[in-house]
This record gives sequence, C-alpha cells and structure tokens, in this order.
Amino acid sequence: MRLAVLGYGVVGQGVVQICDEDVPELDVVRILDLPERCSGERMTSSFDEIVGDESIEAVVECMGGLEPARSYILAALEAGKHVVTSNKAVVAANFQAFVDAADQAGVSLFIEATTGGGIPWIASIAKARRIDFVSEFSGIMNGTTNYIIDQMSRHGLDFSEALARAQELGYAERDPSADIDGIDVANKTIISCGVAFGVACRPDLPVAGIRNLTKADMDLLAERGLSVRLLGRGVCDGHGYAACVEPVALPARTLEACVPDNFNLVSLTGQTIGELKFYGQGAGGLPTGNAMVQDLIDCASGTRLRYDLSAGLSWDPTLISGTYLLRTTADIDGEGGLAPGTVLMCDVTSEQAHEALAQALKTDPEALLVALPEEF
Amino acid sequence: MRLAVLGYGVVGQGVVQICDEDVPELDVVRILDLPERCSGERMTSSFDEIVGDESIEAVVECMGGLEPARSYILAALEAGKHVVTSNKAVVAANFQAFVDAADQAGVSLFIEATTGGGIPWIASIAKARRIDFVSEFSGIMNGTTNYIIDQMSRHGLDFSEALARAQELGYAERDPSADIDGIDVANKTIISCGVAFGVACRPDLPVAGIRNLTKADMDLLAERGLSVRLLGRGVCDGHGYAACVEPVALPARTLEACVPDNFNLVSLTGQTIGELKFYGQGAGGLPTGNAMVQDLIDCASGTRLRYDLSAGLSWDPTLISGTYLLRTTADIDGEGGLAPGTVLMCDVTSEQAHEALAQALKTDPEALLVALPEEF
Repeated sequence: MRLAVLGYGVVGQGVVQICDEDVPELDVVRILDLPERCSGERMTSSFDEIVGDESIEAVVECMGGLEPARSYILAALEAGKHVVTSNKAVVAANFQAFVDAADQAGVSLFIEATTGGGIPWIASIAKARRIDFVSEFSGIMNGTTNYIIDQMSRHGLDFSEALARAQELGYAERDPSADIDGIDVANKTIISCGVAFGVACRPDLPVAGIRNLTKADMDLLAERGLSVRLLGRGVCDGHGYAACVEPVALPARTLEACVPDNFNLVSLTGQTIGELKFYGQGAGGLPTGNAMVQDLIDCASGTRLRYDLSAGLSWDPTLISGTYLLRTTADIDGEGGLAPGTVLMCDVTSEQAHEALAQALKTDPEALLVALPEEF
Repeated sequence: MRLAVLGYGVVGQGVVQICDEDVPELDVVRILDLPERCSGERMTSSFDEIVGDESIEAVVECMGGLEPARSYILAALEAGKHVVTSNKAVVAANFQAFVDAADQAGVSLFIEATTGGGIPWIASIAKARRIDFVSEFSGIMNGTTNYIIDQMSRHGLDFSEALARAQELGYAERDPSADIDGIDVANKTIISCGVAFGVACRPDLPVAGIRNLTKADMDLLAERGLSVRLLGRGVCDGHGYAACVEPVALPARTLEACVPDNFNLVSLTGQTIGELKFYGQGAGGLPTGNAMVQDLIDCASGTRLRYDLSAGLSWDPTLISGTYLLRTTADIDGEGGLAPGTVLMCDVTSEQAHEALAQALKTDPEALLVALPEEF
C-alpha cells in the first residue's frame, strides 16, 4: 500500500522508520514537511501533491494541532484516502465530522495512536464491544503528568523541579498547559467515550489538572496510604453517560499507583469480561509510530472501521460521584478536611466538585481538587 | 455460523450463555456432555454426531484434560472444522500436531482462552509480532496461586489456610498440584513461547511452584521490600530461547506485586513497542467464555490463523540467569543467604538454580527456590 506521512517530527519519523525497516508492504512515498526541512526525494511541502495523487491510498497525519490538520484530514477523506492519525486534539474536536466524511467517502478513520500511545487501547475497547456493553473506563492517559507525579512521589521533588526535569527530557513542552491542566487527557477521554459508549462526548466535560499539586498535598495523602494519579474517566449506564478528568487519590497497592515514569495504564469494564487493564508507553516516536503502523497493516489487509457516535445518551453527572478533597484558602461549603485549609465534599458528583473548585479558584489560584477512593 | 461446544462445565456454560444472549450470529447447535447430564434438545453425548455434521463449521473444546480432548480436536480439524479451545494442557502437549492437522485441512486453531483467561494475550503477542521481534514475555498466568499468595501477603494466612480458602471458593481443585506446582503455568508458558518466538518449546522446561512457600519466607522477603509472585517467563535472542516457571521476588512497587486476588498480569517486550502489560481475569466461565467467543467472532468473520513453530531456535539456558535464593536444610553450594537455612546463588542460570533445587528436594522436601530481582 502506498501512503503519505504528514509531519516529520518524532512520531512521523517513527512511522517512516518502522515502515521502511520492518513492514515492506507499507510504502511511504511522500512525507510532508515545511519547505526548509524538505530534503530527499520523497519529501514535499505541498499537501495538494499528496491529496491529488490517486496512487496514495492512505494518509498518516502526525502534525498535531488543530489546523491545518483538520483541513488536511477532511480533504484526504473526501479524496477517498484512508486516514491514520495520532492527533488527539483534532480528533476530539472533530470526531463526528471526520466520521461523517469517512462514511461519505467509504473510507476508514484509524485513531489507535490518539490515546494511550503504543497501547492497543482503542482496538481493545472496540473488540470488547463486539460482545460486551462497556460500562466504564478510566486511566492514566498522559505520560508527562505521570512522570511529574512519579518524580515528586519517589524522589521528593517539588512540582516545579519535576516539571523542569520533564521538560529537559523532552516529555513536556515549553508551555506545559495542555498536559498539566488536563487538556490532553480530556481529548483522550472524549475519544474514549466515543469508542466505548458510541457518544459524541460533550467538549466541556469537567477537567481539573495537577498544576497546583504540591509535595505537601502528596504527603498528606501518603499518610493515609494514598497516591495521586491524573485520570480520565467515563461511565455509561445505557441511558446516560458522564466523563471527567481529575486527580484521583488511590490506595498505594493499586496497579495505577505503581505506574512508573511516563507510562500509561488504561482500564475498561465489560459485563462478561470484567475488568481489563492495558499498560505501556503512552508517547514516544517508536511506540506511537508502532500504533500507527498497526493501523496501517489493518488498513492494508482490508480492515474497515466505522465509528458510530449516534447512541442517544444524555449527560448524567450522577454517574460519577463520591468524596472529594478541596485544598484551598477560599471559603467553600463542606466538612472539615484532612488538614487545615482542606474541605471534604461527601457524596457529590464530579461536576459539583469541579464547580466548587472553579469557585475556589476565583480567589485562590492555588486551589487543588482530588477525588478520594470509595473506601475513604 | 453453526458450532458445537464440547464440555458443559463452567467455561462451556459461559460460551453458550454469551453466544445465546449477545452474539446472534453464533449458533450453538450441539453441546457434548456425559449421557447422564444431557437434557434439552441440543445436548448430546455422541461426538460422532458432531464431527459427522457437515453444517457445523467450528468446534469449541472446553472439556479440559488430555483425552479425549486430543482425539476430538484432531478429529474435528481433520473433518475440516475450525477448533477453538481453552485447554492449555492439551495444546501445550500437542501444539505442533494440532498446527499440522489444521494446516493440512485448511482450517484454523484458535487458542486465545488457553492463556490468561479473558485477557487478549495470544492475540496481542501475534499482533506485536506483525511489526516487532518479541524478545521476552513474563507474567502471572495462574489465578489460583496468585490468590493464595495475595491472601498470605495481605491477610497473614499460612499457605494451607490460603489454599483451603481457594478451594472453598472453587479457585483450586481438590488436588491442587497442577496449580501450586507450576504445571498449569508451564503449559501456558509453552504456548506463549510458540506464539511469541515461533518455537515448539521443549516440554521439560525448568518448573518450580509455590507448594513450599511459607509465611516466614514471605516475611523474610517483605523485610527487603520484596513480594513473591509465580511467573512464567520466556526469552529469545533470535538464535536461542529459554523459558521457565518459578517464584520471583519483585519490588513491592511493581505492577506484578500489586495484582490482587485471582487476577493475571502478562507482559511482552518488543523492539519498537517497548513493554506492554495486560491485566484481567485469568479464569472463570464468563471471562474465559468471552475469550472463546472473541475467537469465534474472528473465525466467523473470516480470520484465518496459522501458527508456525518452525523457527530454528536452540535451547539456550544462559538467556535467563540471575541471583536465586534457595531456602533448604540440605547442604547446597552457595553464599550465605538472607537468613539461617538459606543459600544465595549468584549469576547462575535458571536451569542451574532449578538443578540445585532438585538436589535439595532429595533430602529436604520442604525446600523453596525464589528468583531475586536484578537490583538485589
């Protein structure tokens, strides 16, 4: 199969390397990059040249960002080319539009690499759904924040020290907001909701990150045997669904609490299969490239995917509720917390807890929200 | 697709329930059981009736044991029927013969449910191999022994108390030897070697179980931050391979050390994907039934599998080596151990360590072998 790769950063290079070295049936004939970075015969800075080449059956988008990725993906689908993408931001924002365009043209959209990097997460949800109703998913979906938390927890670093180390290693961007504010996880949660529940997830789900997580917060929870992880979560009961992104305190002897470095761990629950968990590299050129090449092998061997986001599910915030800890100097309703300056909100929905956080942040920009485990 | 289920125990019932309730395209037309247990129209005690029915395209073997399972599987394959089995003992003992018979008849052998219960382990290895050289695998592949270890570690039970509890819950057989002596894990390790490395694994790989594991052994290791798990392991370097089954002491903050109850966790390493881990129910009617129904859905949708066990790999015991702890009253060469009555064997192969254990067991039937982590 002849294919073109859009974007030649870490992931694009991973895809090209794996295709060239390991999968002779995948022929990378064009690589799109900026004009000043084009060297070698197959590189081009003209997307039109790619989209107009009828011999190219699949386009691999690893540019990231919303534009021109959105336009290129739509144009490729409309031109009858299959699209494989690792770009969670653009898929989360345009999932329905991409699905419609793919359906219209009779081609497939492959999104394994958008969520969980090299972990076969999207395919595993889809496979579970062949038999089971998938009632929930949750997981560590962002390696950068897991690395920061792991460094803070294992080596006693402050948040800013751990972030700086993540930036040195190339795990975090110079502007780390998408990672530490939970935006990247929100995109992956929206995509997972689509695949797991068949719903076009609302874009404004409750999202809280770890920007304000301090060593003192972690110590306070560690005294109670708890360890914080940033989780994306989704729940569905067949009529409604809920989703959120938030720091969650987990008992130290859970698998999630032991995930090291920048690894990811994602879980799903189905009615006959029970709980399945998948662990692996959530980012990086070769693992993410591997996920994209797996999609390409499926595509080349005739697999056609069709996502259906039309399940008539309403947003039901009561599906995610529990006890939340809010650490803030703001004046917020709730019981006395675990320490001075903390408030416990019992039996509230995630949405309510996030509203209280938003309220607190107006006067206390350092406020932190953490979901506590059921047994708490 | 019309299919017959051989054996109507926990797993067989799971398969039938899932097919009947959730997968209308899978039509269970015959169920084989003992004459005295046949009730209802589709039950029969005659295998000949099944194998002679040309309308039956697939046979689902969940009887367990070596015979008549082996004969029935061969007869079904030779009659041109696809075979889906959960029977690790019969596949481990006859992998090459089954592959040959399937090849000859142009049908497929599906073995997902033999290893890891509901975990998509066999399919994940096969998928990884489409791109990567898989250099090793390891994992907790037996839920019964994990349950025993977890009970001992979390609730301070003795081995015999934990085993009795596992038997009460139906996790362990009345004769628990296949579980606690590592035989079940050995079968799954042999199958995993076949799928991961393409080798017909030798049947007499080094196998040690947890029959002699005591609370005192666990306490001794826990003092050093270590937790014991029974692991199946395989390593391949492209020329040779090694495999073994043994108790391994793992740092408490590893995922393996946190696997609760009777769950399984299996890992593989590929050159571009890195490390992937899969966690789920390793047994039980519905999870194992789910894995078999996944195979059936693949089969019905035209997937044809072909295992190739002809990789020219020689047995190379040096591929699994390290430091081993032998707790015994027998007189064995080695350095002073962690406590009186224990010996440390440094930089030995797994095979050498198991030979020392065999030597010790001659005079000390209570001897225990544990592999220590690299950092030890």
